[in-house]
Order: sequence, then structure tokens, then C-alpha cells
Amino acid sequence: MRRTLVTLADGRELFHYDDDSSPERATHDPRPLDARAAAPQLRHDPLLDEWVSVASHRMERTFLPAADDCPLCPSREGRPTEIPSTDYDVVVFENRFPSFTGPVGPTLVEGDGVFEHHAAWGRCEVVCFTSEHEGSFAGLDAARARLVVEAWADRTAELSALPGVEQVFVFENRGEAIGVTMRHPHGQIYAYPFVTPTTRAQLASVARHREATGRNLYDDVVAAELRDGRRVVLESEHWVAFVPFAARWPVEVHLYPRRRVPDLAALDAEQRDDLAGVYLELLRRGDAFFGIPLPYIAAWHQAPLTADRAEGALHLELFSVQRAADKLKYLAGSESAMGAFVNDREPESIAARLREVAGA
Amino acid sequence: MRRTLVTLADGRELFHYDDDSSPERATHDPRPLDARAAAPQLRHDPLLDEWVSVASHRMERTFLPAADDCPLCPSREGRPTEIPSTDYDVVVFENRFPSFTGPVGPTLVEGDGVFEHHAAWGRCEVVCFTSEHEGSFAGLDAARARLVVEAWADRTAELSALPGVEQVFVFENRGEAIGVTMRHPHGQIYAYPFVTPTTRAQLASVARHREATGRNLYDDVVAAELRDGRRVVLESEHWVAFVPFAARWPVEVHLYPRRRVPDLAALDAEQRDDLAGVYLELLRRGDAFFGIPLPYIAAWHQAPLTADRAEGALHLELFSVQRAADKLKYLAGSESAMGAFVNDREPESIAARLREVAGA
Repeated sequence: MRRTLVTLADGRELFHYDDDSSPERATHDPRPLDARAAAPQLRHDPLLDEWVSVASHRMERTFLPAADDCPLCPSREGRPTEIPSTDYDVVVFENRFPSFTGPVGPTLVEGDGVFEHHAAWGRCEVVCFTSEHEGSFAGLDAARARLVVEAWADRTAELSALPGVEQVFVFENRGEAIGVTMRHPHGQIYAYPFVTPTTRAQLASVARHREATGRNLYDDVVAAELRDGRRVVLESEHWVAFVPFAARWPVEVHLYPRRRVPDLAALDAEQRDDLAGVYLELLRRGDAFFGIPLPYIAAWHQAPLTADRAEGALHLELFSVQRAADKLKYLAGSESAMGAFVNDREPESIAARLREVAGA
Repeated sequence: MRRTLVTLADGRELFHYDDDSSPERATHDPRPLDARAAAPQLRHDPLLDEWVSVASHRMERTFLPAADDCPLCPSREGRPTEIPSTDYDVVVFENRFPSFTGPVGPTLVEGDGVFEHHAAWGRCEVVCFTSEHEGSFAGLDAARARLVVEAWADRTAELSALPGVEQVFVFENRGEAIGVTMRHPHGQIYAYPFVTPTTRAQLASVARHREATGRNLYDDVVAAELRDGRRVVLESEHWVAFVPFAARWPVEVHLYPRRRVPDLAALDAEQRDDLAGVYLELLRRGDAFFGIPLPYIAAWHQAPLTADRAEGALHLELFSVQRAADKLKYLAGSESAMGAFVNDREPESIAARLREVAGA
């Protein structure tokens, strides 16, 4: 694997991750780009004790461009894109419309202490899986998937070292049904300036379980799913996938390494090799689930950097809003307003279907 | 106001709420209905410490029926619906496809204590605002809106007294963009067998604030918003509406009574009278926001029945996924997987627009 750093015209960083045999990449961005937008603001919700990024410049972001105007395709004569080279294997660059960006700054307080805010520091990156505009992660070959894993691990390590970053989130949104605004196969990485609400809630449960049993809850959940077996979807030498006991989504599967690690950067070479194949297999089963390209969110949960890191557990939560070939699940009142989920499909039946379409 | 109880053919309860001057309602349901579906199962997510209802019978629920087959319209000759009468003012009945229903039962534990579950007891009701199939809550007259408030308060009181119910949630999902499966103007009520995650998170903040300051956080937030003023949308004698400092949605407004009460049932007659007009005004401004019928979730947060009830605060959180006349906000990876929201619109600009369209 060869990494090449390119500085884009507005100062953003871009990294090529290439096979050793791939050609050299262009390192000059010829575009006249406007200065980067001001950093978004991060506001504290006093009632939920959560941080919300207010990023009004994102209202102008690129929205479903035609294939000819795709900013994630390689550049060609007279049509420069976000990637100056005429080809690439895997490329990662700073998002032009970030929800989090810039250096750490002061926290301000208003409203008699009720309203806290500061710059939404951190970093948002885009990960292009292939230079082919049509296609999907599931369509990559194993070598390319392995290169993406390497890029994810490298970015996780580097973003984790940025001042003020508390958690690195590697994810892919796939499909317009979940709001994808660019069709070119790509994922994203958010380096958050806080521990996310979901991770905070999980680690609170983990702490209570440690107190009560002396054991790690993630370890116990994986062991209990394996012993029960009804929701296990696949097992490989280093990885285990299952539909969780209390799945929230009509299609949902979680993937854990058998040996718990905090994040992608902590996976050894064997775990990474194995992951490339297992992940491709899961995504292909997803597309076979209803026989349509499955809209999905693939979310890599990683241990935070400052709090409870030793108790954390790298794992993938892969889920879909598709509840039938022609119907979507919406997060309506109960889910969106109250956080109380209703799943129309039994977790055991989700797992049965995901086993049935093995090798799809 | 006159309330009439009807028992439907499968044993479900239906309540008419009518003006005193309205005609008597039919009390016999002539339909041959199948027995009610088995109660859904409630499963505990050990990592998030949240309960998920697994309600597989809901997969078969009525999906966007033609106006002629609408189960929420009054019955007519040869075409009986969920409402046996040939007309109604406001009607409330138990949902035929409930996420929560039935009596309290035992809690079962599996997987060495990791997997807890029990019947998803509680109750789900449908609230029809008008017998007119076309239209919306915003199109009701003030007297009808007042009658709906009365029905909400009555149902809240009655459902709060059911064994095993810990929180009553009154809400409306409006618009197909947020997943509405029946177009007839209606809302819903969920009587949950747990305190919802959102309310639990709010009350944890309230408890910390009480400990730190001796004051109630809801009271302090309302006072701080009024003092600041930039996000205030409207004030009436008994009610205050503002866009919250850390709004999550491109359109969002919260409505509080000036005098804090735990729930709708605790509102006095003057607060209820005032609410009918204020709520209609907010919904009408919502439709004027982009000049289209706004898809929205109107969520009445009420104090739970068993925990911290005295600290709770009835309030409405009204929000929309619409981020432009032709674009929706989707809950993608950051929001759906990590609970970390990014708002493309500044709360102050949301409030300015909601003031601009006053009296719409």
C-alpha cells in the first residue's frame, strides 16, 4: 500500500491509498476554489445534554449531481474534480461541506449558563472506494475491499491524534432512501469533538455491567449470541456476525471481531484480511435480502479516545430502513421524538433470511 | 363535551368525543372481525439499556388505502369502517395493529442475564380529528381543536391509570414524507410500559440541574429563551413557543405552558382554551414555512408516571424533516447510528421565518 498526500486548492488534504503497482498520482489541484466556509457552530442541548452541529453552509452542498458533474470521479481534461488525478484506487479527502472542522477554541456560555456553544471543531472526510461512478462497495473485489480497510485504519489512527477529537466514526450511507446526495460509491469519516450519544449510552451500560459482574458487556453479548445461535448470521476465523436480540431495524446485523479491540487501527493484519471478505459477504447478502440494491447505513462503532477507552469494542452496526421490497420504515413519532423503537420484523426472522442468502 | 363508549367487534374500545349538540352515535359494530393479534414482545437492548417492541403483525397494517377504503372515515351503508357511526366529531379507538397492548405479565431472562423480555403491554390509540377524509389539523376550526385538546387530556388521564403504563405520549405524524400510512387526519397515543429514552435523558439533565442550582431546568430553559428573545416564535396569555437553542431539525418549535404542569390532563380550562388557538396558529405557520403542506411530527412530551413526575414538564416538540420546498433531511449515519445531529439551518433563522409567516 502506498499513501500520497495532495493539498487541494483551498488547503484541504487529500490522501491516495494505492496498490504498490498503481501509477503515481497527480499532486496539483488546478481549480480556483473559494476559501473554505467558516467552521460550523456546536451547540449544547441543555435538556438532552447532547451537542448539535449547526452547519448552515451545508444547505448549499452538492445534491445528486449528474454523472458528468460528479465531484468524486477522477479529473479528466477540462473537467477537474475533487480528485486531481485521472485515476485512483482509494482516495480520502476532507469534506468541502463539513459538519465538523477546524481547531479547538473556547467554549462560550449564555442564558445564565443554560446555553453553551463553541466552534464545531474536528474533521469530516470522504472516502471514495473506487474511481468507477457506477457500482457499490459490494461490487468491489477482495483486494480493493482490503485496501479500503487499510485506509479506514490509517485515517482512524491519524484522526484520533488530532487535538480535541474524542471519537472517530467510519461509516457509509448507501442509497437515496437514506439521503445519499452523491451516487458515486463512497463512505465518510467524522472525527467528533465529543463522545456520541449512542456510544455514551453503550459505555454507561458497560460500566454498570462491569460493576455488577466484573466482566465486559460487549464480550458477554457476543458470547450470549453465539451460545444462543438463533440470530447468528456468519462466523469466520476472526469475526462473528449476528442480528442483535433487540434489533431496531427491519434489516440489521452487527459484526464483531472475536478478539475485542478499541478501533480499526488496532486490528492486526489477519483480522483485516479476514474482514475484507466477511464485510463484502454481508453487503452482498444485504442486496440479496429483498433482491434490490439495499439502502443501508454501515456504522463502525469505535471506542472513544478520552473516556472508557479500555472498555470499548470496535464493531459494525449495519442496518436498513427497507422493510419490504417496496416499503420503507420511517422514524416517526415514537422513534424520532421519544427514542422508542418498534420493529415490524422479528430478529430471528431477519437472521434466517440473512443465512438463507449466503454466498449471494 | 359528551363521551360515548363503543366496544368494537373484536373487543377494542372506541370513544366518541362530541359537542353537546351533536347527534347520538351508533354503538354497535356489525363487522365480523378476526380476533386481535397476539401482544407484541418487548425486548431489552443490553447495550443501550432501551426497550424495543417487536410487533411483527404490524407488517400487515393498512398502507395508504384509497379514500373509498379509508378505515378512519365514518361507516356508510354496506361499507363499515373502524367507526360504526355515520358521522363523528372526534373519535379515539384502540389501534388494530398496536405496538403495545394487553396486560402486565412476567419478565423473562435468557442468555445468562443478558437478554430480558416481556409482553409489550400498554396501549396504542388512534385519534381522528375530523370525519372529513381530506384536510389536516391546521384546517380545523377553533371549536374542533378545543375538542381534540379535551380528548387528549381525557385519554391521558385514563391511560395513565392503566396498570404497567409509565408514560403517555400524544402525537401526530403528518405527511407521507415521515411515513404516514393513512391520509385521513389523525393522531395517535402510545401508553408505554417504560419511560422513553428521550424523557429519561431529559429528566437526568433536570436532576443534575436541580442538584447544582436548586431550580427546575425546564423552567430555566423557558426563562432563558424568553430573556434572549431571538428564537421566540409566539407568546400568548398562557403559552410560549420558541425554536430551541440547539434545534436538531430544519423546522422545529417547542411550545410550553407558562405555568409548568406534568401533562395535558393537568391543564386547566383557561390553558386548554388558549392552547387550541395557539396550536392551530403554529401548524398554520408550519404550512406557510415553505408554502407546502408541511410533513411534521407533533410530539407531546409528558411527565412519566412513576419517576421524577414532579420535575416533568408538559411541552410540545413540533418538527419537520423538510429542509427546503423540494428537499428532505434524512437521518443518516451520524444521526441514526450515533445520535449526533447536524442541522443545516440556524435556529435563529428558523424562528425568524416562523415569525414572518404569522397569521398565515
